[in-house]
Amino acid sequence: MSNALSPAALDQLFRTARTPTDWRAVPVGDDLIRELYDLTKWGPTSANSSPARFVWVRSPEGKAQLAELAMEQNRPKILAAPVTVIVGHDLDFPETMPKLFPARGEMMKQMFLRPGVAEITGFRNGSLQGGYLIVAARALGLDCGPMSGFDNAGVDRVFFAGTRIQSNFICCLGYGKPESIFPRNPRLTFDEAGRFA
Amino acid sequence: MSNALSPAALDQLFRTARTPTDWRAVPVGDDLIRELYDLTKWGPTSANSSPARFVWVRSPEGKAQLAELAMEQNRPKILAAPVTVIVGHDLDFPETMPKLFPARGEMMKQMFLRPGVAEITGFRNGSLQGGYLIVAARALGLDCGPMSGFDNAGVDRVFFAGTRIQSNFICCLGYGKPESIFPRNPRLTFDEAGRFA
Repeated sequence: MSNALSPAALDQLFRTARTPTDWRAVPVGDDLIRELYDLTKWGPTSANSSPARFVWVRSPEGKAQLAELAMEQNRPKILAAPVTVIVGHDLDFPETMPKLFPARGEMMKQMFLRPGVAEITGFRNGSLQGGYLIVAARALGLDCGPMSGFDNAGVDRVFFAGTRIQSNFICCLGYGKPESIFPRNPRLTFDEAGRFA
Repeated sequence: MSNALSPAALDQLFRTARTPTDWRAVPVGDDLIRELYDLTKWGPTSANSSPARFVWVRSPEGKAQLAELAMEQNRPKILAAPVTVIVGHDLDFPETMPKLFPARGEMMKQMFLRPGVAEITGFRNGSLQGGYLIVAARALGLDCGPMSGFDNAGVDRVFFAGTRIQSNFICCLGYGKPESIFPRNPRLTFDEAGRFA
């Protein structure tokens, strides 16, 4: 049984965390990206299927290719951010089940190979892992700029050629310029977003 | 620019957090559920669309109805946990855009109303919000037991009748029995799950 994290930690993860639209020229090193993956990977997924796949785009060539495939207003963000990660999910993830769930790997693999199951399980759990990535990045002191405004099919052709990985969303990572943050929009109240039953 | 949270906090959120399969008879109060929502709601979504909807199932009748619609092995978990939240997403979320994105609400509403867009945006962002919920619960000291093994259409009929909300996954919340936790399964390495570009 754990205690709640400190109010400052809850602020950093959720309450005061914001989405910058421009980025400081402060690099994000390999070690920090690996540490980010090593937090993200522990988040729970269906039968530990872990379908998310990540391309950490940071070379000038990679950024130019990705920016080219993004909506106009997202291009400068990708070019300015030290890293933009492409979050995808591998429709071939059932093949990994014997490794990821040794006790019942073959059974789980067959279950996920039923028609339509890999698509929905991959998208659901790859998105969950994307959520873990965003909160984990903030836990490590990074800012996040998640975006859906890009050509998914084009990104799949350029970054996931020869695989059945499908891009989901992309996310700038780094240290945002505070002056690039828009005023915060309202959220739904507890009662607007749900109910007790 | 923030610092990383403490190693103990990173453990609690990710590295040592586990999924219990049985639950202590310790209640989760209204205030804690509302606090959990009030963290979750701040996580970023496409144009602040916030499509996730939540039913916090905790009454004996609600638990019995939900357990009935779950796979055999998930029934006792739902009956034992103090709360099981149904995470869904509202396909009518575009209607909320004028409230959630006052500066460009009507434009965003029309964009999300294009054929097929609400379905994919709702599922992606509702799942992201589900990921925020799981990490936020852990940040508040709760354990989580997320599950996909239930009859989605049946849950929609019983809990979301008269709406266009679709159930995504369900998640037990409470304080797990440590002895109910299975040995941890392996994860993909950094290189198995991605690459630099």
